[in-house]
Parts: sequence; C-alpha cells; structure tokens
Amino acid sequence: MLVILNAKASEKEVKEVTSRLEAWGYKIHISKGVEKIVIGGVGVPEVNELECADVLRSLPFVEDVLIIVKPYHLVAREFRPEGSVVKVDDVEIGGPKIVVMAGPCSVESYEQVLETAKAVKQAGGRILRGGAFKPSTSPYSFQGLGEEGLKILYQVKKELGLLVVTEVMDPRDVELVSQYADILQIGTRNMHNFRLLSEVGKSQKPVVLKRGFGATIEEWLLAAEYIAKEGNPNIILCERGIRTFEPFTRFTLDINAIPAVKELSHLPIIADPSHGTGRWKIVPAVAKAAIAAGADGLLIEVHPHPEQALKDGPQSLRIENFLSLMEELKAVAQAVGRTL
Amino acid sequence: MLVILNAKASEKEVKEVTSRLEAWGYKIHISKGVEKIVIGGVGVPEVNELECADVLRSLPFVEDVLIIVKPYHLVAREFRPEGSVVKVDDVEIGGPKIVVMAGPCSVESYEQVLETAKAVKQAGGRILRGGAFKPSTSPYSFQGLGEEGLKILYQVKKELGLLVVTEVMDPRDVELVSQYADILQIGTRNMHNFRLLSEVGKSQKPVVLKRGFGATIEEWLLAAEYIAKEGNPNIILCERGIRTFEPFTRFTLDINAIPAVKELSHLPIIADPSHGTGRWKIVPAVAKAAIAAGADGLLIEVHPHPEQALKDGPQSLRIENFLSLMEELKAVAQAVGRTL
Amino acid sequence: MLVILNAKASEKEVKEVTSRLEAWGYKIHISKGVEKIVIGGVGVPEVNELECADVLRSLPFVEDVLIIVKPYHLVAREFRPEGSVVKVDDVEIGGPKIVVMAGPCSVESYEQVLETAKAVKQAGGRILRGGAFKPSTSPYSFQGLGEEGLKILYQVKKELGLLVVTEVMDPRDVELVSQYADILQIGTRNMHNFRLLSEVGKSQKPVVLKRGFGATIEEWLLAAEYIAKEGNPNIILCERGIRTFEPFTRFTLDINAIPAVKELSHLPIIADPSHGTGRWKIVPAVAKAAIAAGADGLLIEVHPHPEQALKDGPQSLRIENFLSLMEELKAVAQAVGRTL
Amino acid sequence: MLVILNAKASEKEVKEVTSRLEAWGYKIHISKGVEKIVIGGVGVPEVNELECADVLRSLPFVEDVLIIVKPYHLVAREFRPEGSVVKVDDVEIGGPKIVVMAGPCSVESYEQVLETAKAVKQAGGRILRGGAFKPSTSPYSFQGLGEEGLKILYQVKKELGLLVVTEVMDPRDVELVSQYADILQIGTRNMHNFRLLSEVGKSQKPVVLKRGFGATIEEWLLAAEYIAKEGNPNIILCERGIRTFEPFTRFTLDINAIPAVKELSHLPIIADPSHGTGRWKIVPAVAKAAIAAGADGLLIEVHPHPEQALKDGPQSLRIENFLSLMEELKAVAQAVGRTL
Repeated sequence: MLVILNAKASEKEVKEVTSRLEAWGYKIHISKGVEKIVIGGVGVPEVNELECADVLRSLPFVEDVLIIVKPYHLVAREFRPEGSVVKVDDVEIGGPKIVVMAGPCSVESYEQVLETAKAVKQAGGRILRGGAFKPSTSPYSFQGLGEEGLKILYQVKKELGLLVVTEVMDPRDVELVSQYADILQIGTRNMHNFRLLSEVGKSQKPVVLKRGFGATIEEWLLAAEYIAKEGNPNIILCERGIRTFEPFTRFTLDINAIPAVKELSHLPIIADPSHGTGRWKIVPAVAKAAIAAGADGLLIEVHPHPEQALKDGPQSLRIENFLSLMEELKAVAQAVGRTL
Repeated sequence: MLVILNAKASEKEVKEVTSRLEAWGYKIHISKGVEKIVIGGVGVPEVNELECADVLRSLPFVEDVLIIVKPYHLVAREFRPEGSVVKVDDVEIGGPKIVVMAGPCSVESYEQVLETAKAVKQAGGRILRGGAFKPSTSPYSFQGLGEEGLKILYQVKKELGLLVVTEVMDPRDVELVSQYADILQIGTRNMHNFRLLSEVGKSQKPVVLKRGFGATIEEWLLAAEYIAKEGNPNIILCERGIRTFEPFTRFTLDINAIPAVKELSHLPIIADPSHGTGRWKIVPAVAKAAIAAGADGLLIEVHPHPEQALKDGPQSLRIENFLSLMEELKAVAQAVGRTL
Repeated sequence: MLVILNAKASEKEVKEVTSRLEAWGYKIHISKGVEKIVIGGVGVPEVNELECADVLRSLPFVEDVLIIVKPYHLVAREFRPEGSVVKVDDVEIGGPKIVVMAGPCSVESYEQVLETAKAVKQAGGRILRGGAFKPSTSPYSFQGLGEEGLKILYQVKKELGLLVVTEVMDPRDVELVSQYADILQIGTRNMHNFRLLSEVGKSQKPVVLKRGFGATIEEWLLAAEYIAKEGNPNIILCERGIRTFEPFTRFTLDINAIPAVKELSHLPIIADPSHGTGRWKIVPAVAKAAIAAGADGLLIEVHPHPEQALKDGPQSLRIENFLSLMEELKAVAQAVGRTL
Repeated sequence: MLVILNAKASEKEVKEVTSRLEAWGYKIHISKGVEKIVIGGVGVPEVNELECADVLRSLPFVEDVLIIVKPYHLVAREFRPEGSVVKVDDVEIGGPKIVVMAGPCSVESYEQVLETAKAVKQAGGRILRGGAFKPSTSPYSFQGLGEEGLKILYQVKKELGLLVVTEVMDPRDVELVSQYADILQIGTRNMHNFRLLSEVGKSQKPVVLKRGFGATIEEWLLAAEYIAKEGNPNIILCERGIRTFEPFTRFTLDINAIPAVKELSHLPIIADPSHGTGRWKIVPAVAKAAIAAGADGLLIEVHPHPEQALKDGPQSLRIENFLSLMEELKAVAQAVGRTL
C-alpha cells in the first residue's frame, strides 16, 4: 500500500500514518519528493488492505492511497498459472475444446425445449441452456415456469443425454435447482447478490458466473472469489455485455475482457453474444469474435420460433441460423488452435 | 405500440403483424409512408406490452417496435398526481419538511452508534441510518455485525427516541430486520434482486429503494413497481450515484434524476451524496444541490471518527462537519420553499 | 512517479528502470515488498512525466506506473489558492456575484435576439449568449448564420449595453469572432480540438471552455492548460453534462464536478443546465442545484418561441419561465452566501 | 415522424401539431388510443427532420417525437447495398482481402520509421501508419514532428513502395498533408470537428474516420455523411474503442459496432486494437476478434523499441510480436472466407 501526502505534511501527520501502518503489521518505507511524500506499507499483514486504505483515505491530510496488490487470491492467475479446467460429467470447460451452451432464454414447454435441444445435439453441442427462474425488469413480464421448468429441462436432458445449465436467483432455491441442473447460472443482475454467491459457493456444483452489466472486471473476479472462498472452485466466468451509452445494441460485449481475464485469472471464460448484443443479426459475428479472442465457450440463445418466444426473442437465433453458425465456428476455433 | 416496417414490406408481412396485434386485443391503425410503414396497436389490452414488442421485434422484417406507454403504473405520477407522502411514525417523507437520515455506514459498536446518533438528534435529525448487514465487493471485507448490529441500532433508537433505517440484503432476513427497523433499505447492488423486492413488498414496512448504479430511471421505477405490486406503497426512492467514466469520484450523482423522478412518479425521492461522490470534501456541496433540485431528503454518512471506520470512511462526514452542513441546508431548504 | 515491478523481478530489470529514471533526472527510492517492488522516481525533472511513464509501461516486466503529481500546473488550485476571477468589462466571474449568461441556442434573426436580450436584461442579466457558428451532428441541420449572426449579436449588445458570449469552432475564425464577441466559447465537441485551444490561448479574450461530454475532469483541466500555456489566463470552465447510459435525459449534468473543480483548480466554473439535461422542464431544478453546489454562474438557453427555434428548442426556457427562474435563483444564491 | 400526445390533448393542440407538419410538407395520419394520440407525419419533405422534431418537442403538450427514418443517406447501406470498396493505388479496402495498416504511433526519426516499415513490408503489409501531427491530451506532451515527420514518411514510402496513412487535425493542414499522404486520418478527438470533416470532404483523398470515443454509431455515420456530402466517397470507418467505466483497459473496443456498421452502412470498416485496448498484451486477441467479426482491416501500432517510444508505447507491439500476429491473422481471415 502506498500512501500519498503533500510534501508540506507535518511530521505529526506522517507519524499518524506510519503508526497505523505499523499497528496493522506493515513495514514502512518513506520517500520524500519535492511535491509529495510517499509512505509505503510493505509486507502482507493479515488485515484487509481495502479497509485499511479506506481508513487512511479518511484522514484529511492524506491525498491518496494506492493499492498495488490484487484484492483477490484464489481466482488470480498466480494461484494456478497453468489455468483451470472445469469438468462437468465428461465435458471440459477451459480445455482445448470450445464448449457451446445453447437453448431458449426461457423454458416455455416440453415441445419447445425438446425441439431446440435436438438441434443443439445435432450441431454437436453437449450443454442445453434454458431459464426456469427468470429475472425480469418488469413485474408484469413472464417470470419463468419455476420447478415445472426445471422438470422439463431434466426430462429433455435425460432423453437426449445432454447436460443442463440454468439460472438460480434466490439463495433459498440453490438446493432445488441443484437437483435438476448440472451447472448453476448466476445472472448479471445477481452478480452482486452476495448471499446467493455464498450459497452457491457452499454447493459443489459448477457455476456460470455472468458479469454484472455495470461491474468492472475486478469486481467480477471478487464475486468469483466469494464462491471460491466457500470452497467451490468450479467457476466459469461469462462475459455478457456491459452497459454503455451506445443505444443501437442492448449492451456492449466487452471483447477486451476475454484476454484481460485470461491474464488476470486462471478461470475459464465463455461469452454470451445473445445478451451482449440484443440483436440476433449480429450474434454470429460476435460469437466468432469471442472465440477468436480466446473464449473457452459460448452461451447462445436459440429458439425454434423466436417470434413466439415469451422472452428475448429479438436476440434468439433460429435453429437453421444456429446450425450454420456452428459450422462457421468450427473454422474459427481451428484458426486459433482449438476444436469445437 | 408502434411497429415499423420497411415500405417495401409485403402484404403478407403486414398481415403477420396485424393479426398478432389483433389476437392480443389491439386495434389497428396503419400509416404508409414513402420509406416506412407504421402499424399502430391501439388500446390497452391485458397483455404485457414489453413481451409483445419482443415477439414482434424477432420477426426478421420488422425494423423496430416502439412502446409509447410507460411500463409502470402504480408508481407513475398519473396514478397519484398530487404526489405521495410516506409516513414513518410521526415523520413524513415527501411533505414540506426535508428529512435527513444520518449515521455511520456500518454499525461497529454501541458507543460509536450512540455518539453519532446524539449528533443526529442534536442537529434536529429524526432518522438514524446504520448498516448491520453489509454488501461488500470483497469477501475479505467487513460484512457487518448482523443481528447484533440490529440490536445496537434498536437500543440507541429507544434511548434517543429516533427512528432507524437499515439495509436488508437477503429475502430470508426481511422478517428479522423488520423487527428492529422502522424503514428497510434495499441497496444499490440489490435493486435487481427481484425476490428481495417481492419479499419487501409483502411486508408493510416503509422502504428506501436505492437506484442500481447501472440502472436507468425506468428500471428503477420498475423495481419500485415490484414492491408496490405486492401491496406495499410505502416506497422512498434514493438516488445514490451512477457509474460513469469519471474516475475522480466513486460514482456520479445523477442530479437530473431528481426532477425527472418528480415528473415521472408520485413517490418521494431522497439523495445520498456520500455514496454519490465517495469523497467527504464534496459531500456538503452535493447535499445542498440535491435539496435545491427538489429532493425530499438526504441519506448521509456521519462517523465520529472516520479514520477508524471499518467501511466507507473516505465519504463519511465528521460530526462537526455534519452539524455545520445541517445549518447550511436550512438556508437552502428555505430558498426552495421548504423547511428542515 | 512510482514504478511497480513483481517481487521476482531480476536485478537487471530493476536496473533498467532505475537507470532510465536517473537519466531523466529523477532520484531513486526502492521499496521491496513480499509481492511487489516499488521504485519511486523523486524530484521534478524537466521531462514530461506522462511520456516517461508510458515508456516504462511498455517494458514487459513493469506491472504498472503510477503518477502522483497532477499533470497540469497553471490551472491547478495550488497555482492560485485564493481562486481567480475573470473580468469582462465590469462583470466579474468567480466573485461573490453569480453570473447568468442567457439567450437563444442559435442566432436566427435580429428580432429574436433583441426580444430575448431584453428579457435577459430585465431579469438583471448582463451577458447574452447566442450561436452564430453552430456545430451540428447532422450535415443537414442548421449550421448558424455565420458572420451575419455575429453582427446581429453585436448590434443588440450595443443597443442594450450587454456583453456577448458566442462559440468559435475553427482556428481560422478566432480573429473574426473576437471582433464581435466579449467572450469566446469553445463547445463540448471541440474541447479536444487542440489547434483551436492554442489559437484561443494566443488571444487575450476571456473564454468559456465547455467540458467534452466524453472527457474526464483531468482532461478538461488539461484542455484549459493548453489555453493558459499560450498566455491567456481568462478561462471560465463550463460543466454541460456528460454522456452516460441514462436515456431519459440527453446528457447527465455532473454535479459532482462543480465542487471537484473548485478543489482541483482556481478557475471559475459555471454550469449549463440546458444542454446538461436536454429537457426544459427540468432545467430550473438543475440550475438551482448548480448554484447550491457552488457554481459561479449559469449558461441558459432562453428563446421567445422555443417551438419555432431552429435548434435545441426542447431545452430552451420560454421568457416567462426564465424570469421566474431568475427570482428563484436569487433565493438560492443568497442561501449559499452569494448574490445574483 | 411520429408525434406522441396525451390522449387528453385538446383539439387545438392536435391542430397545432398537424398544421405545422402540413406546412413542412408532411401528410398526416392520426391514431387515437386510450392513453396516447399518435400523429404520423408521412412523406419525405425537403426539410430537416431532426430540426422539425426539435421544434415539436418544445411544445409543452407534446410528450415525445420519434424519428423512424435514418438521418444519413449517402453512407447508408440502402444507398449502395452491395457495399463499397475504397481503392488506394492498387490496394482495395472493403474487398475480400484484409488490409493491415501498421507502424509507430508517432514519427520520431527516419531510422525508426524505416525499421518499422521494413517489418510491415516483410509481413506482407502495404500501408504504413505514423503520426506527424499528434493530438495530445497534455500540452506538455510530444505534439509530433509536423511537416518534418510527413517528409520522413514520404521518403520511407518511396524507398519501400508502401502507401502512407497519417493524421490531419487542422483544416488548414489538409492540403499540406495531402501532398505527402495516400490516406488522411481523422482522429477520435476530431470526429466532431465539422470544419475539418468538410475540408477533408472537399479533397478527394481516401480518409480513415475514427469513431469518437464518446460517439454513438449514428453520430459516427453522420460524421461520415459530412465528408460524403462534400463529394468525397472514399471513407474508411475505424472502430477504435469507446469510453466506458472499465478501468483495466484504456478504452473498450466495441466489437458489436463492426457487424452493426456492416448492417447500417455500405462503407468499409477497420478496427484499431491498439487504442481500443491500450495494452499490447491483449492487442493480438482483439485483432483476431475484429477480423472474425467481419472487419475489413486493422490499424495496429508497431514500434521497434516501444520502451523508447515518445508516445503510446504501452500499446505498441514489438516487431517480432507483430510478425507472429500476422501469421495468426492469416488463419483467422481464412476461417471467415477472406485472405490477408
């Protein structure tokens, strides 16, 4: 930690900083410049550095406090430099093979899920996505079929031999959803629902953790740290678009985040071009971009009849478009040394 | 609802739109231009307009769908044009008197809360704020004292005759927190925690609903609608800053949102200049601005010793600064025809 | 400057940093921690610190470079701690009296300007605003009357004894505009037009420098530094809203920026609630907020017939609304110890 | 144009809207709903629709005005549905071959440019980039070598048989820069410098138009329309990152913008992953993503010794990294049916 004071700071003020740092267990280095004094707190004491920094920042004569050590540990790249692979049954996420999770935004009926799941399987996909509990901006919108939806997913999964990923949005539902799903999903609006993160961390289920659309990469990794800290290392990050001023697309998929996360963390990362764009016409281009940028997989909305979808139709691919995208993705995966 | 098609759209395509609209209960108006065809769906059918719009948007020949009726109803200004006043004991929020809720970010000890609460009372404040359950970006940061913190708040409130507002972040805690608090608070990271919104809606407790730092005004009002829809009309909105590209301040307090909400909704609105700036030096200026802009109250962090605070010290006012701010606020309140 | 290296950095790598710092004239302080090495470059050498930092950042083993001295000097608060006052004729901007600059967005005709100017004068205003050269997002929109517009402004100014502020958008026009105007204005889209900044800096005319809607406070102050560096100290900053994700308002007026600029710089600062909101209905509330937050003045669009305006009608106040706002502003100014 | 009124609007108010629309040459369609009245203005009159909309918006009883026709024409996809190809000598931008423009951010010396240019040529590149006039946020930073820099570029171009792209930032320099360069570049900070756009439009030189980092796609296309309207159709759009709240990267490259522009406009589009990320380590991943998303080319910063660069070293690739990236790009180009 580096504490910046004005060069005119009194000895008493410098002392006030150093004695606190020492009390927390830091060793002290002082560097006096013409305009600023920099007090370095060195060592890795057993205190929360973010909190200590805030304490110092509230001293009126402290100009700034800089933290130079990352606030997350278990999910940091340094913790597992070779990268981690999350295994779900016989599917590996984070390995050489790109994993595509596809399906409808919401589970509406057995027939709808079955038709989509068959297409996913036909295209070589192994993981079916579909929402039974749906977070909706409006209380008047469809909120999902709940447990009935979970049962439909489970039935289709059994019939076709697929795996299932589905969202959980309430800490009280983690157990229930875990009975039906192979992978839990934490949605963008719940990335900061810390109680839910902890509950999912206590489970051992693999979890797709979507980035909050207003969250920085660091906050996202700290959310993953919540899960890891409770003992669940099976975390798959998912970039799904951030909110910017651009109105043409619903969100802006942060393509930079893919290589950035690869640098900062050992966790696998997938991308969701459906929510990241909000427009099915540009989903294929952005899906290919994500793979080219190094993503380990994709989460894509596919619907047999998007114009009848109860949710997010505008961003869902029709089955025929999904099938041709999968062909195109194979070439891109190969171009970056991977397979699909 | 207005559905925009290219002027070259076929009759069959126009028919596909109109027959859907009719099936949902809309009456049809068609207006053909040189470049576009506009199909108006008129009437207020008992369907969710947002969902119907999404269905139409997913038709490949539909260029755009525009919704011209607001998606919220119970919290809309039209629902109660005279504005609503939330009563908590003998305190009225939304009336002529500005209400200041002040106290520490986190409850740390009985002594700390008591000292701050005395200052709040001395300055004429009636409502004490303080967090017992704390949402923290890092799992290694202080998470609050939990029920012990609630008890401290309750004890101080009884001793000094104040009212208490405190955060609830888990639907499972609503009942517990309601036993101790007079007003529940939903934090910025939980504005989209729809299960929590519903649970709080089922209670009859007054609730401060903070704006998500990545949420639009419309999404915020829809979150309020979730609470209102469950039967709880006692909602106080709180503007607490949105996330922008500006790095000097932690967040950007959206001052425009205050008159905007007054125009769009009948609910009272308060402002939180502490979180909205993240810097105690500029809190007083922004607090005065919020009142001048028409806010019904303020939520301010005050700490007897910010440099010892376990959380958010950099944005907490010292007691002496808080007391002088209260004096300044009186003059501003009067300038806009209100009292403090 | 602080250069952060991994604690595992080799002696050769440390040497590569220190020898560069020494060559630039810095003295060296090294602080070795468990995870990081911090190399401090101390002193104020005659090099550009931003550039030196970039050079070091491009060394593959350098993790980060932190600059702790502000990159601007002439406009920094430290340069003139008491604050500066810009005098235009007998009007002082930055003194105890709030200065309101009002008028139409665009000059359309002599009659329009005269009618508005009379209202400005009647309300006690001394400075008339109006655009003769207009930056328009669309090439098909009105681009202003050019020199003819300047002449109209000049004529009305002479008749009524007002001062005039008007925009200049091309370095080739600085001389021309200076002949007619008392204050030059640099618009939000030209804040980064460095050639224009330099040209205006060479003139001695007072200048209103609007914040770029995508610019940080630091970049804005650096733009002011461009002007000051050329010898023109008569700079008035103008906060006019930044671009955020909120769609209800055209821009988000950054109210935090007002006290922030007061802390960082000695320059006077005014606010433009017309562009900062884009909606005349909320202009008065935000105008009052800006004054309460410490702004030294306002730039407001007033039009006798907004529904006939060629530009920006939706954000222009009618004359009667402007007159009543001025009354309300008097009370707010007084509440914060100033006059109008 | 669609004008939205409250259903309670009086006949006189409806009349005020319709008579204006008729005066501008629109035909009228009225559609009365339960909550709103929608007045459609149909036809394509010879007025500026943006301005007319603003006039109507300023009527106090008008709730909203929606424009459903795009405000740009010459650069719209409809104008040339097959897409346009910009030819520079024998190089085609927008055709099947991906075009890479590479070189140093700033021209520093003949030796530096020559060394980099040789690498560009060796990798099969045809276009050399390099800045002689540099827009710098700080007035104390390197502003470029000016005409001397142009001469160096010209000399190297002649020696190696390359083409040159370089920035022009002042309308007064367009003629000078055109003498040396094959392609003019308008930088992100000048996208809204309308005088510069017009001046470049009057020239017939091909121009790379970078997106303003705070500009929407629509504003960017309107800036292109400024150039096209003056008679210069040789426009190459360049996505170079937008400003968001994410601090890890300097900007956020908007990958969605690539397929979005392909849908909305016929102009070729390239991407600048160097400025779009600000970190050389993630440049290769984002470069590959841009090609996978459909970009027609790349603008990449390459420097023989980034740690000695006077500008933007942190985002410049070393020559060896550039050469290996070019190999990787070949595979990605092929995967999307193109060549490099």
